[in-house]
Amino acid sequence: MNTRNPRPDVSPALRAHLAAIAGPGRLLTDPADCWPYGYDNSRRQALPQAVVFAADTGQVAALVRLCAAQGLPLIARGRGTGTTGATVPDRGGVVLSFERMNRILRIAPGDRLAICEPGVVNADLQRAAGAAGLFWPPDPTSAAVCTIGGNLAYNSAGPRAVKYGTPRENTLGLTAVTGLGEPIRTGVLTTKGVVGYDLTRLIIGSEGTLALITQATLRLTPLPEATRTLRAAYRDIQSAAAAVATLMAQPVTPCALEFMDAAAIAMVRGYAAVDVPAATGALLMIEVDGARAGIEDAAAALAAAARNEGLLEVRHARDAAEVQALWRTRRALSPALRQVAPKKINEDLVVPVSRLAEFIDGLARLARETGIRIVNFGHAGNGNIHVNLLMNPDDPAEMARAHACLDAVFSLTLGLGGTLSGEHGVGLEKRDFVDRELDAPTLAVMAAIKQALDPAGILNPGKALPS
Amino acid sequence: MNTRNPRPDVSPALRAHLAAIAGPGRLLTDPADCWPYGYDNSRRQALPQAVVFAADTGQVAALVRLCAAQGLPLIARGRGTGTTGATVPDRGGVVLSFERMNRILRIAPGDRLAICEPGVVNADLQRAAGAAGLFWPPDPTSAAVCTIGGNLAYNSAGPRAVKYGTPRENTLGLTAVTGLGEPIRTGVLTTKGVVGYDLTRLIIGSEGTLALITQATLRLTPLPEATRTLRAAYRDIQSAAAAVATLMAQPVTPCALEFMDAAAIAMVRGYAAVDVPAATGALLMIEVDGARAGIEDAAAALAAAARNEGLLEVRHARDAAEVQALWRTRRALSPALRQVAPKKINEDLVVPVSRLAEFIDGLARLARETGIRIVNFGHAGNGNIHVNLLMNPDDPAEMARAHACLDAVFSLTLGLGGTLSGEHGVGLEKRDFVDRELDAPTLAVMAAIKQALDPAGILNPGKALPS
Repeated sequence: MNTRNPRPDVSPALRAHLAAIAGPGRLLTDPADCWPYGYDNSRRQALPQAVVFAADTGQVAALVRLCAAQGLPLIARGRGTGTTGATVPDRGGVVLSFERMNRILRIAPGDRLAICEPGVVNADLQRAAGAAGLFWPPDPTSAAVCTIGGNLAYNSAGPRAVKYGTPRENTLGLTAVTGLGEPIRTGVLTTKGVVGYDLTRLIIGSEGTLALITQATLRLTPLPEATRTLRAAYRDIQSAAAAVATLMAQPVTPCALEFMDAAAIAMVRGYAAVDVPAATGALLMIEVDGARAGIEDAAAALAAAARNEGLLEVRHARDAAEVQALWRTRRALSPALRQVAPKKINEDLVVPVSRLAEFIDGLARLARETGIRIVNFGHAGNGNIHVNLLMNPDDPAEMARAHACLDAVFSLTLGLGGTLSGEHGVGLEKRDFVDRELDAPTLAVMAAIKQALDPAGILNPGKALPS
Repeated sequence: MNTRNPRPDVSPALRAHLAAIAGPGRLLTDPADCWPYGYDNSRRQALPQAVVFAADTGQVAALVRLCAAQGLPLIARGRGTGTTGATVPDRGGVVLSFERMNRILRIAPGDRLAICEPGVVNADLQRAAGAAGLFWPPDPTSAAVCTIGGNLAYNSAGPRAVKYGTPRENTLGLTAVTGLGEPIRTGVLTTKGVVGYDLTRLIIGSEGTLALITQATLRLTPLPEATRTLRAAYRDIQSAAAAVATLMAQPVTPCALEFMDAAAIAMVRGYAAVDVPAATGALLMIEVDGARAGIEDAAAALAAAARNEGLLEVRHARDAAEVQALWRTRRALSPALRQVAPKKINEDLVVPVSRLAEFIDGLARLARETGIRIVNFGHAGNGNIHVNLLMNPDDPAEMARAHACLDAVFSLTLGLGGTLSGEHGVGLEKRDFVDRELDAPTLAVMAAIKQALDPAGILNPGKALPS
């Protein structure tokens, strides 16, 4: 889907300006070159007027000042793995790609921190930290290709967040350029620090609308010595949801607590051999990590907490091959989904853990009422469920029902005290729903902050907040 | 020390307005009644024109609107345990005491959260959460009397922060009233949520200058099953600092890693019987918590990491009495300090853990150079050292040298990549030093945010940021 794109031509004067700021080999203006920088994983696309490759903080600041002077939108981009259109230049302007600004500047094991540029790929950081016995907890599914800058822009986490938190809990400080065109330094090198306001977390999750991150100081965590993996199969979703609540109310916090509902299991069955009991109505993947000494007891505590009347089977992996085998059903889900439904709405909703059963029940009801197939899986320990509405894009009536269903899904989520996005963000996709979650005075404060940090309104305009 | 205080009289009209908003029995204007609300633990004091007891969000919002209309400073106050003068009404105005707004509204074990009013005392929350097998990690030394609202206003933590983080890592959302006079709702009920900007953390640590917190949703953590306590005595500070770095670079994170230097030990020796080896130049208190099954191994791992050439002795507490005995030296420090030096500057500085030895060396050098006695202790695992400069308030020359020494201590801290406050905050005490840590563009962004959230400049004016 191409979004509205005025894309006036870049004048020779502007091109010269941009080239001078960008530096040699760091500017694209030919549309053929620019197209690959105009989309993300939302299937939206729009053509930027130019693409600049970020080089350093000074260059980024100079570019911000030019764009502010010219009223030109400036859209930061990592590797385009976002799912909400947040990096799509739907109003034209300059896409600032951070892909070449990808140096890991420092790994400091004694201080448990890494300093890196935003274009570093998550997996590359993990490798470098791992060599020092450390890791950075945020682990989006796209870790092999997504960038640290993108992780920070959306506050993207992944399964490990249930134990280790999101980027907001794992970032110490930033260098960033606000819309005022001057670099700022936020946060500290230490795990404590209360001088000045917390701009670090304000910028994290702001989707490039407040400031462009040019350097990040990340808090690292020691790699656990050992991990154990369990898979628990339940008769029905109520039993699985009850187990999640019990698991989260006892002292051993799992490092992953992932969930698949009956529709997700059925989908995988149609795609690959599945070794779960035939009567399985919901599946939990449970992982625990920690010191070698206590790990068997920790796994036993989780297995005990997972047990309830609806439990059909718990399997413990005894070696790496069995870990892989247990995860196979979960891993087959994404390709299965893609095969079955070329078009899906993949939502990223969160409800309090205690409301999970009601939430899944409500989704089943909506699926029945609207005739839309809904498949659910996700990070149950955080209450973060990826709700997938499957539909045939060639059937306009079904598309309309799907959108009505989605609307009802949002109402259901908010009615249960939940939030419309746990880790994917808002971008363009959810912009028009934000005011159903946030009230007018709160949105007014956010708009005032946007105005304070980006008075020219050039940093990723129209994203994250309602227009 | 009384700070400048214009305190114009409260006109009858204003008193009537205030009384109508405050509600029956919730307004003080008599100076004798107001004085006890004009100081904190910084020994600064100033007389407010009035004291209002907060009742609910609507009342607070009405009061903000009145103060904004009248240009009257409005200073939020918990129990006055702060050490920086942040709650001292040095420009007069209205002190808003939250002490009566102290209900715990909900403890939800399944969702690992508590919802409470800001006047709840930290220890009361811990008792209520503990009954459900949970706790809130922030544990300032003043937990028996300080309030949750104060903890949030300063982002105050304590020993446990080394493992569990500060209020910013342990708060899910807030209800607050900005200077615009309208209640806002920030954050979510869940551990993930990325809709809108992170106003929760922006408000936490802002010392009442951006918004008044009227309700907090706190993230609770399951109480650990078991705790083990070790005390390690070192020949010298270099050995202890090296041990801290080793302890923080291995996988078992202690839940407390506290430190005392030779001057602190000497001070306690002069006050009470001390059972540490005579040659002790530095002491570490090390605690670890977790599941019962792995706890002995975890303690052994920490004891092994604590071992280096300079170690004189490690003692393991075997029961509660021995835990008390091991902590006795540390606990005797505060009364000893008070006895020896009625006047001290108690700083709250942070340096990266890897720079601790240099920091303590530098402090010793400054003590020698200036003739000021410096006693150091604190939260070594966070690099958060409470640096105490002792002086005789009746000796003006010594006072002058102490202030020169303090200036040099700040330079030392910043030169090592540290920060001027880990958990006490800025208030009035450090306001004039903030611009040595934060650069002008960063301060300009903070000022712009202050302006956006409090355009009338009435929320705790002149605190936290340079004037």
